[in-house]
Amino acid sequence: MKRIQTETEGYFVLSRGDEKIEHVIEESLEECKRTLIKGAEKDLENACYIKSWNVKENVLSFALNSGNLVRSHVGLLRLKKVLAKELGEKLKIGIRRVSAKNFKVILFDRVDEVAVNKIKSMPKIRDVYIEDNKTVILLEDLDENDLRGNLIDRLINLIEEVSKEKHVSYEQIQPIVRISQPKQMKFTGDPLITSVELGWVVPFPGRGQFIYTSKYAALFETIKTILIEEVAKKGGFKPFLLPKLIPFEVMKKMPGYFDSIPEGMFYVCPPPREPEAFDNFKLEYRLKKEVPIEELKKVLKDPAYVLAPAQCEPFWYYYSVIKHKSETLPLKYYDASGYTYRWEGGGVEGLVRVTEFQRIELTYVGLPEQVVNIRDEIVEKGIYVADKILDLEWRITAAAPFYVKEGSSNFDPYNSVEVPAYDIEIYLPYRGPRESSEWLEVAGCFVHKKKFVDSFKIKCEENLEIWTGCTGLGVSRWTAAFLAEKGFKEEDWPAIVREKYREILGE
Amino acid sequence: MKRIQTETEGYFVLSRGDEKIEHVIEESLEECKRTLIKGAEKDLENACYIKSWNVKENVLSFALNSGNLVRSHVGLLRLKKVLAKELGEKLKIGIRRVSAKNFKVILFDRVDEVAVNKIKSMPKIRDVYIEDNKTVILLEDLDENDLRGNLIDRLINLIEEVSKEKHVSYEQIQPIVRISQPKQMKFTGDPLITSVELGWVVPFPGRGQFIYTSKYAALFETIKTILIEEVAKKGGFKPFLLPKLIPFEVMKKMPGYFDSIPEGMFYVCPPPREPEAFDNFKLEYRLKKEVPIEELKKVLKDPAYVLAPAQCEPFWYYYSVIKHKSETLPLKYYDASGYTYRWEGGGVEGLVRVTEFQRIELTYVGLPEQVVNIRDEIVEKGIYVADKILDLEWRITAAAPFYVKEGSSNFDPYNSVEVPAYDIEIYLPYRGPRESSEWLEVAGCFVHKKKFVDSFKIKCEENLEIWTGCTGLGVSRWTAAFLAEKGFKEEDWPAIVREKYREILGE
Repeated sequence: MKRIQTETEGYFVLSRGDEKIEHVIEESLEECKRTLIKGAEKDLENACYIKSWNVKENVLSFALNSGNLVRSHVGLLRLKKVLAKELGEKLKIGIRRVSAKNFKVILFDRVDEVAVNKIKSMPKIRDVYIEDNKTVILLEDLDENDLRGNLIDRLINLIEEVSKEKHVSYEQIQPIVRISQPKQMKFTGDPLITSVELGWVVPFPGRGQFIYTSKYAALFETIKTILIEEVAKKGGFKPFLLPKLIPFEVMKKMPGYFDSIPEGMFYVCPPPREPEAFDNFKLEYRLKKEVPIEELKKVLKDPAYVLAPAQCEPFWYYYSVIKHKSETLPLKYYDASGYTYRWEGGGVEGLVRVTEFQRIELTYVGLPEQVVNIRDEIVEKGIYVADKILDLEWRITAAAPFYVKEGSSNFDPYNSVEVPAYDIEIYLPYRGPRESSEWLEVAGCFVHKKKFVDSFKIKCEENLEIWTGCTGLGVSRWTAAFLAEKGFKEEDWPAIVREKYREILGE
Repeated sequence: MKRIQTETEGYFVLSRGDEKIEHVIEESLEECKRTLIKGAEKDLENACYIKSWNVKENVLSFALNSGNLVRSHVGLLRLKKVLAKELGEKLKIGIRRVSAKNFKVILFDRVDEVAVNKIKSMPKIRDVYIEDNKTVILLEDLDENDLRGNLIDRLINLIEEVSKEKHVSYEQIQPIVRISQPKQMKFTGDPLITSVELGWVVPFPGRGQFIYTSKYAALFETIKTILIEEVAKKGGFKPFLLPKLIPFEVMKKMPGYFDSIPEGMFYVCPPPREPEAFDNFKLEYRLKKEVPIEELKKVLKDPAYVLAPAQCEPFWYYYSVIKHKSETLPLKYYDASGYTYRWEGGGVEGLVRVTEFQRIELTYVGLPEQVVNIRDEIVEKGIYVADKILDLEWRITAAAPFYVKEGSSNFDPYNSVEVPAYDIEIYLPYRGPRESSEWLEVAGCFVHKKKFVDSFKIKCEENLEIWTGCTGLGVSRWTAAFLAEKGFKEEDWPAIVREKYREILGE
């Protein structure tokens, strides 16, 4: 089936005009057609075809259209080869230059507005519009270098990726309790696209996974360092290093995971203790150089862990095995020791909804008013980083997490003790106007009340009521949001970011 | 079956002596015996028994022995309750004090020398010796607080853990090419034991996994920062952030993993795309509050990833998708973004051979002499950190990794170009004398020659021969080695470590 089509007008500038050119072309037409089908013989719909052609003085033009197997730019280069030979042998005419105008990529699908914006922000894109339920992407004029490199194929891959993203139609339901002054946007594109273009990020074969190269990594480290300094350390939080591989017995105590979103986690099987169990596996693998999946499934032990989806799981385990007294409260610890994981199914999007990502996870345990105050302080400090240091446009919304959604969604969003979570959100220009587009949650600042205390049996010696809370500062998302507003030019970044960035990069 | 036994002499100091005491005890003996069996009725071998008893003036003594269900210290406290009642009601005599001497924990197993040393370093241990193929652990005198707290149970747990560790009998085969001056050891114990005792580390339910609390985490961050600064940055390496969840298609290209050590990896299954697939799972889970494993296995997709065992896997993928020209070589990048994983089977040991650990992974690509020089520079810088900054006793050995073991183990250990790996090893005093004990490898500094270039099809445009190499600086191990030599008192640490540590801890 044809899902994608390309069209273009190709131009060959010849070494001179000649009235016999038309005749030579006519004689070569059959060979031209054959060469445009090569490789798509079994799927002719996706080959390349000549719609019309024309000679005017020393310029020869072809209108081509194609499916996805021999794309029009490839067709044009194949035509050049055939015609150069024919014109050279028969008329001693050479081809001086090849170029293409009105190169269109047509998706047989209507992409949504967010995708249109994202595609518009890709390089070499002149326009994107919807026509007859199809999406038409018009490229800028292309020279032979553009046609020969893998620019167009890379573009089409990106376009296909974006068209598969699900941009859920957005309705603002969380009440906005505070909002920043509008800030000047230095960039309007999807940072993933520019990151890939610049080599800051390289897609990894696993869905929603990326290799982040040195410039991205240095910016990430910069923002992580700032957040740890300004939010964690200044807030009196101390570092922990937490496991990221969570045994079922711990995960079972996390409210809402196994019962509500088991489909959002990766499951991990340990190997058996006896290495001999793998003897057949090794034999088969060495023979076929393919992982023998059925044999592997026979050998492996049952799934026994998940990859941490929440990051704080081991904190609650820790708080449940130590003794609490009122004079040692509140406890404030953070972890920023590695990746956590969510399986987003079809829902991965750009750099902001990925499978594997990093957070600074802060947890706090204390008397109820201590916990509420700590949460509110974190929100203030987070706003400070967004507003004063990173210079991002932010807002605070009041939210309820999935496990309290039922029943308690009627709360006064300004009365902190009633609010399960304050989200810090950052505006993403590529998603559209401020008022109607979805902003990016970069921090969820929670008060759990007794939810986790009950579930993990966290006890205070004097039988005082204690509460817990946690805040995830999504460093991967802060970084993506920063790039979405500030772009990729160091001179557009706040000086403090630029300096730390250069120091980390070692430049 | 009885695997463990405890024995002790318990002493009750009474409010006064009385000739009728002996008679009262005789009358209560049956009740005493009953109370010592309670909870072990179905496994009498593991209950507690009175071997003999005696009264001398106002001191009543009992010799007890027990299995693992009612341990002697628990027996002693139960006796106190019965006797206090009897002596109080019949003679108005109170029990003033309880204590125990010669408390022995006897393992029905001969532990090895390393385990003996480790157990000796535990708190409250007077002596450890082997007798009739049993291991006898003699505790110091215990007062009522010691008996009542969970000290003894925690000790016995630690002893059992250590006795299960496999300390492979050690033979020095890797040639030692350089060795440091002897250094003064500030500590001789197993750092895991003291870490647990001090709460620096809390065992996590997953085997070989730990929660590292703030002091350990701050020391870890200190050492990580030093290594990044001194080895990575000063060596011109730039940071990357790499995936840690490795799809099979990438892992297949790693020499030696699937074919030689598939039993050393964790395997990961993604969930299916359709959340409905979990409907039954959710139902069953909500009913039983247990993870329905069989249902889960039905729902999950086939294993498709491993948890990164080598950390550098995505680097080679990256080098295989970018273009190399001689003028852009050498490339030097590092990753220190999170945990990697090895399933050690039965072989976990203390803090030094764990399942989940952190490394700084450096990789380098270049012309052969570039790669060899870079590796040698890393070794020098690593020695500098060990010797001058952390003040550790180190040595360098020449090694071959498992995938080149065959055939190339005859090399001149001083001729770098021939040496697959130089290991930086640190002396661990708790393992025994310098000359006869196994030192801890904290860095493996590799030159792969063309092994990875071939396997990942890494190509240089001019068709020049290029080599690769990698070095893993095991930060988790550097930290454990530091604690093993320097101990837990800040004043015993080098000033530079102490200062950075306090800064990170925020004190």
